[in-house]
Amino acid sequence: MKIHVVESVLKANDAVAAAIRRTLQQAGLLALNLMSGPGSGKTTLLEKTIPLLGPRHPCGVLVGDLQTTRDAERLGDLAVHTTQINTGTGCHLSATQVAEALAGLDLQSLAFLFIENVGNMVCPAAFDLGEHRKVVLLSVPEGDDKVAKYYTLFQQADVILLTKVDLLGVLDFRVDRVREDLARLNTRAPLIPLSAKTGEGIDEWLAWLHAQRAAIVAG
Amino acid sequence: MKIHVVESVLKANDAVAAAIRRTLQQAGLLALNLMSGPGSGKTTLLEKTIPLLGPRHPCGVLVGDLQTTRDAERLGDLAVHTTQINTGTGCHLSATQVAEALAGLDLQSLAFLFIENVGNMVCPAAFDLGEHRKVVLLSVPEGDDKVAKYYTLFQQADVILLTKVDLLGVLDFRVDRVREDLARLNTRAPLIPLSAKTGEGIDEWLAWLHAQRAAIVAG
Repeated sequence: MKIHVVESVLKANDAVAAAIRRTLQQAGLLALNLMSGPGSGKTTLLEKTIPLLGPRHPCGVLVGDLQTTRDAERLGDLAVHTTQINTGTGCHLSATQVAEALAGLDLQSLAFLFIENVGNMVCPAAFDLGEHRKVVLLSVPEGDDKVAKYYTLFQQADVILLTKVDLLGVLDFRVDRVREDLARLNTRAPLIPLSAKTGEGIDEWLAWLHAQRAAIVAG
Repeated sequence: MKIHVVESVLKANDAVAAAIRRTLQQAGLLALNLMSGPGSGKTTLLEKTIPLLGPRHPCGVLVGDLQTTRDAERLGDLAVHTTQINTGTGCHLSATQVAEALAGLDLQSLAFLFIENVGNMVCPAAFDLGEHRKVVLLSVPEGDDKVAKYYTLFQQADVILLTKVDLLGVLDFRVDRVREDLARLNTRAPLIPLSAKTGEGIDEWLAWLHAQRAAIVAG
């Protein structure tokens, strides 16, 4: 009974996600679903990324959190459009929430749409939001053992950003251990070591973004 | 329909949790449910805590993760008993999983039972495991904005451990911002700044543990 209902919730979500994907395809933008644990640096990454993409690549942002508008306030001046979605007790964004947020948006004017999911390494992995690409962040302070533990998330990633690498000298973290786990789970997604503080990896991340957008727009 | 099923799942969980609580009460131990985001230092805290509690206070540990037995391996030599619970895709421990793990345990021989939940700041907050006390960890690298965002978790805490405070000098983190949010959400639980690396706060945490156990055993 429980499983049956969960399945039907997922099916209903996937149907809405498919409709979102069709809408986004026509708009000619790249939509990214950013997923990670709490405090791995999703908002900080966007604060850094959006100005570097520049006015020729206008960005829209949807930000999910249980409560507060703190992330939307941080991004409000940078993005062309920012919507905070408060989930209350919800542990992930759903396609329906994204569809409602997109309804009011001029998608044709955007080059990138960043969807910052609720900070959670488990539940967001189960819900397609109609995005083109899934971006998964793992921060150095979270530890090098997380890929295998939260395998459902890392399996789906189109790119994995290892954030806060400026802390590699301070913390006991073995990047090779992450690479070993990824070699078993996901050999498709590149791993980009990155620091919003020092700027390391930002160029590689921007190049990845532009390449993905070119592929979608050509598509 | 969906909400109805979720409610009945929670009710069924609460019934099992109540049975666990009765069993634990008779055993004369203190049971703690440790909750936090991924990589905030739950296992590291237990690695530090269990030896300091010493052989006069034998500890049992249940560890929840989607996959891997890494945490149980780290704690196996320290605790009298360690059980790894793999949830597969499950985003939290349930009372039924705890009840099954406890079935094989000699509870009378334990002074403390630590239940390390799945690393997730959302879902574990909704599931009573029959524990006596809820311990919530927030690590400095996760950021000072997390209490208000993940309010359901922090509202329920009996104690809040601010971990990795050795990184306060390196990272931009305002403890007063955490205290302000807690003043609105939870004035009952003490906030203990703590570092497993330097040992700061460990004495206060041990004193809290012993005081809670004394209160439970005195009944």
